[in-house]
Amino acid sequence: MKMYNFNSGPSILPEEVYAQAADAIHNFNNTGLSILEIGHRTSWFEEVLHEAQANVKSLMQIDDSYEVLYLHGGATTQFMQVPMNLLDTNAQAAYCDNGIWGKKAIEEAGYFGKVAVAASSKDKGHTYINKTLNVPDDAVYLHYTTNNTVEGTQWHHIPDVSMPLIADMSSDIFCRPMDFSKFSLIYAGAQKNMGAAGVTLTVVKKDLLGKINRPIPPIMDYRKHIEAGALLNTPPVFAVYVSMLTLRWIIANGGLAAMEQRAKERADLLYNTLDSLPLFKPTVAKEDRSLMNAVFILENGELEKQFLDECKKNGMIGVKGHRSVGGLRISMYNALPLSSVQAVCDLLKDFANRKG
Amino acid sequence: MKMYNFNSGPSILPEEVYAQAADAIHNFNNTGLSILEIGHRTSWFEEVLHEAQANVKSLMQIDDSYEVLYLHGGATTQFMQVPMNLLDTNAQAAYCDNGIWGKKAIEEAGYFGKVAVAASSKDKGHTYINKTLNVPDDAVYLHYTTNNTVEGTQWHHIPDVSMPLIADMSSDIFCRPMDFSKFSLIYAGAQKNMGAAGVTLTVVKKDLLGKINRPIPPIMDYRKHIEAGALLNTPPVFAVYVSMLTLRWIIANGGLAAMEQRAKERADLLYNTLDSLPLFKPTVAKEDRSLMNAVFILENGELEKQFLDECKKNGMIGVKGHRSVGGLRISMYNALPLSSVQAVCDLLKDFANRKG
Repeated sequence: MKMYNFNSGPSILPEEVYAQAADAIHNFNNTGLSILEIGHRTSWFEEVLHEAQANVKSLMQIDDSYEVLYLHGGATTQFMQVPMNLLDTNAQAAYCDNGIWGKKAIEEAGYFGKVAVAASSKDKGHTYINKTLNVPDDAVYLHYTTNNTVEGTQWHHIPDVSMPLIADMSSDIFCRPMDFSKFSLIYAGAQKNMGAAGVTLTVVKKDLLGKINRPIPPIMDYRKHIEAGALLNTPPVFAVYVSMLTLRWIIANGGLAAMEQRAKERADLLYNTLDSLPLFKPTVAKEDRSLMNAVFILENGELEKQFLDECKKNGMIGVKGHRSVGGLRISMYNALPLSSVQAVCDLLKDFANRKG
Repeated sequence: MKMYNFNSGPSILPEEVYAQAADAIHNFNNTGLSILEIGHRTSWFEEVLHEAQANVKSLMQIDDSYEVLYLHGGATTQFMQVPMNLLDTNAQAAYCDNGIWGKKAIEEAGYFGKVAVAASSKDKGHTYINKTLNVPDDAVYLHYTTNNTVEGTQWHHIPDVSMPLIADMSSDIFCRPMDFSKFSLIYAGAQKNMGAAGVTLTVVKKDLLGKINRPIPPIMDYRKHIEAGALLNTPPVFAVYVSMLTLRWIIANGGLAAMEQRAKERADLLYNTLDSLPLFKPTVAKEDRSLMNAVFILENGELEKQFLDECKKNGMIGVKGHRSVGGLRISMYNALPLSSVQAVCDLLKDFANRKG
């Protein structure tokens, strides 16, 4: 059966990436060795890492004032590592509260310093993005989540603030061109738009570091990672390789402008279909809808269950909403073909015709 | 050219594991999906994780008073996470200083509480294992490194102490039967004997936790990982899968008794060859030699370079010693065939005949 992968992450990657990754497990770059057995301090791996780092810099169009690190631990570890490196005990940082990942970032930051909530969309179940912020002048940085995977909202502008800007871009990185130079620190778990689970990208402006008094355990100190050339400890070699391949695919397929065009085609098709069918109710304010994750409900719980069953029968996976919000969700990351969205739209229309 | 992989880690894995891992990238368990695109909260991945956890428990013969976690971050993150969870600011822990990894563990622990060095082999360049320890009665745990990858020493007994015992087993886990129930916490980066780089095993006795006053950031709190069923954040799905396959291979190939027999055959062959050739000088006290990493030198630096060149010409990789100690090192992990050791022994003898 043909499968349609609407997972929210880990999710679909390009077919070429699967093929190249599998080949490299048998024989990496004609070395006669598997990518799984090569040392991380070999020139073989260094080439992989350096290409991945260069691809990130090229896609972001950032200069050498930034360092590109591939770290362990997922974005959740960055929720901790960011304030551990940047927020003194008596200082405060501003955070936007726009969904469950932002909330987790706020929670971790609270272990290190004070948190000022600059904006919250909690009053409407995080179904919109705040247009005005209340950022204290002495906040040492503003943190926000560019795309809310669970709630299906996305920032379509970059907040304009005077302090360093930090973003968790886990679920929409590299889906569109952006002025990345407006950020002082960007991080993203790789497992949506830029690779498989098991590695996290952190891009940090060097002049942001070394300004606090807290002693930082070396393994969590961004400066130590930078000094060690991003090889402070054994990196997740294969996950870095898969991310490098995925970034290479993005560049070969037209870069961020092309990714955005494809994302808009997918999202337009899906949201237009949903808007045309009264049975399905998208939950997010129209102007804040995510290009990556479309969240909607069926008001009748029994029908929702029937729809999910029909998805399953048609090989469409990942359509159930996150356990914290329920409903339905269709995720449409970079590697998802438009034909997959067409397939689920056909099912949406057919289902509505039969049940509506 | 046939390759012989003597890497110290990441290193060689069983051929079957490469084949199964590559197959799963194309089509995981006949799902029609790649292992790289499946969600970590699917029953598909849960089966993988649960089999990996069960394999660990079965190999260790430990009961349900232990929890088996697969974590991000490498053993180096455990250097921090262990004292963060177990060592109060005013308490002290005892550490054995037997090599560079133990030293790094001591350094990270110093950020959290007091460290008493229970033993050190620094006086002789870490070429032996201390036979007596000086552990303060109030030490909350004793930490040691069962095998010193860089220096080539290995503990062939388990320290007998009254306080909880903690071990970094990164480079010799599952190479031999042990009474694992003597330990309260065991951790190991997977990339030597139990998988590829990108995931770390932590086995912890539950009653060890929750006894300190420090607020622990949730992502670093072992209890939160346990409460979440080892799925607190997105795990490195593929790395867990490769580890599960590797553990399955160990069990199918006779378990730890068979791994030990193979390790002894490899080590006996290599050390006997080295001992028979005056040109090569093993650096470690005979009774403390590692079954996994044999470290030796050639007193003539020019000859050392020539020998390394000949290894390279013969497809033998990973023979250069760690940059911190120099010399030569042959690593012989679980998946290394005896024939590879025979091949390098043939070269050692031939080289000694020509140059000795």
